[in-house]
Amino acid sequence: MTGLDAHDVEAAAARLAPVVTRTPALTALSLDQAAGWPVVCKAENLQRTGSFKFRGAYHHSASLTARERERGLIGASSGNHAQALALAGRLLEVPAAVVIPDDAPAPKMEGVRALGGKVVTYRRGVDDRDALVAETADREGLAVVPSANSRHIMAGAGTTALELLADHPGIGTLVVPIGGGGLAAGSAVIAKHVAPDIRVYGVEPKEGADTMLSLRCGQRIALPAPPSTIADGLGHSSPAPLTWAVNSRLLDGVVTVTDRDITAAMAFAFRHLKLVVEPSGACALAAILAGAVPHESGTIGVVLSGGGVDLPTFHRLIIDAPHRKEPARV
Amino acid sequence: MTGLDAHDVEAAAARLAPVVTRTPALTALSLDQAAGWPVVCKAENLQRTGSFKFRGAYHHSASLTARERERGLIGASSGNHAQALALAGRLLEVPAAVVIPDDAPAPKMEGVRALGGKVVTYRRGVDDRDALVAETADREGLAVVPSANSRHIMAGAGTTALELLADHPGIGTLVVPIGGGGLAAGSAVIAKHVAPDIRVYGVEPKEGADTMLSLRCGQRIALPAPPSTIADGLGHSSPAPLTWAVNSRLLDGVVTVTDRDITAAMAFAFRHLKLVVEPSGACALAAILAGAVPHESGTIGVVLSGGGVDLPTFHRLIIDAPHRKEPARV
Repeated sequence: MTGLDAHDVEAAAARLAPVVTRTPALTALSLDQAAGWPVVCKAENLQRTGSFKFRGAYHHSASLTARERERGLIGASSGNHAQALALAGRLLEVPAAVVIPDDAPAPKMEGVRALGGKVVTYRRGVDDRDALVAETADREGLAVVPSANSRHIMAGAGTTALELLADHPGIGTLVVPIGGGGLAAGSAVIAKHVAPDIRVYGVEPKEGADTMLSLRCGQRIALPAPPSTIADGLGHSSPAPLTWAVNSRLLDGVVTVTDRDITAAMAFAFRHLKLVVEPSGACALAAILAGAVPHESGTIGVVLSGGGVDLPTFHRLIIDAPHRKEPARV
Repeated sequence: MTGLDAHDVEAAAARLAPVVTRTPALTALSLDQAAGWPVVCKAENLQRTGSFKFRGAYHHSASLTARERERGLIGASSGNHAQALALAGRLLEVPAAVVIPDDAPAPKMEGVRALGGKVVTYRRGVDDRDALVAETADREGLAVVPSANSRHIMAGAGTTALELLADHPGIGTLVVPIGGGGLAAGSAVIAKHVAPDIRVYGVEPKEGADTMLSLRCGQRIALPAPPSTIADGLGHSSPAPLTWAVNSRLLDGVVTVTDRDITAAMAFAFRHLKLVVEPSGACALAAILAGAVPHESGTIGVVLSGGGVDLPTFHRLIIDAPHRKEPARV
């Protein structure tokens, strides 16, 4: 009993079909050459609000009863889940509030507000974020929408892999980034269902390898300090309980990438795929380009999970990246 | 008699189906808000070799008899047509040679070579490029593949609009960039066939408005000097005869955009669509964001025609661009 099965993901796909972008699965000869295998990239940076997070946020919110959500939704995020939740609220015609640290970049807050969401700030390192969410939810009768630790969030995220495998049934290895672990969990469940021999690998930044270390220890562990990595969406200190229950059972492994691997992958995606991919979103591609993922036959499927990077950050990261000479995109 | 009809485009679509990427048609609430209308973007920067040019180059090459192309293909381009032709040759298993100025950026030449194409250089401003192409073709028995002035090129390019209108039949206005004019011609022919009431507009850079001025004069004119614009793919001095024959009859108008409009559109595409779009490829979006295109009802369809911009150029252009505050991508 994992708390999540393939039927959950299929049900999520049916619910999400009218509202999500069916993102393209992109290939390029230059990528195949660099990886040494055929590679197909699921471009979830082209998803609504710029990441796969919209799938889970909408599915979770829409799975609530009208009564449960009538007062509104609330969640905590300084990243992609924030805008995903704001759009979910907008589409479901209920208020959405997002708890964001008061030092978050202004565009993140503006992005939430532009979608009609309400921004609730807290003092990072001073206030208890989760307590603030719980208190606000309780006081105002709001439904809490987690960013990963929910059966519906995992199921929604897993529709990414379902679409990819429908488009490319020859995928032998599927590679996804691990942050909260919802994408990995949902993807692993559906992938092993539709293609029992498939191998599914998670990718974490080297400095935030809480899932890899937990697997090594055979139990959930917590990093002693919040990880420092450019992959801010993957900077979790400990696997979430529900995603861990799935990932510890189904993943074939977790590999890590360095910040340098990540920026090289971002530059590769810019040049050869013409895609803007944020650091967290580039981790799976980074692992492939770095040769970190075991693969024996068939196509490698890679999820590019998000594009939430602003221009100044992109410039700073990529100007310093190793600009390896690569063949043109084909 | 235009030299091109809807059947040509439909035949091209059938031929191209197995080899092209069916590029996504992307939407974003932030784009709708900025444009004041629903907008859908056909992301041809995600096409193989990074632009719509592959459609025409492959279709033209594949339409030759095996005998005609057995010695190989040749064309002239320092831009997207070069790699498109190299890939067409590779897929058709014949040699492809591209005539490129000897001062072209090294990555362009490397891109052609990485695809197995041969680079033939000439001295810009000294040698006669077209004569070199003709002489080489004649001497080596190669088939010349034009970049725009060909019925097959126009038909192949028009499949872009055919796909877009199939995905979004509610498009009332279609906006495409004009360089050689093949994309505009093919798009106009098929669009007016499948949606007789649709309006089709071309977009040129202000400094390279040869088609707009030709329309105004009622005949093909030539600019007195090669245009200076960041939209290097649209820097033509005069409309090609075959594309002019179509465009002068079918286009509802041609509007122009400034370099500043173009860089603003590139920045918008980066932020809100997570796409890398080159200056020429951003012109249609630029025209929409600048409010330059008449539109009365329905959705606006925009072709993002290519992504052939390298990182240093992108940085230089976008750092200087007006970074208007925009809502987040949704």
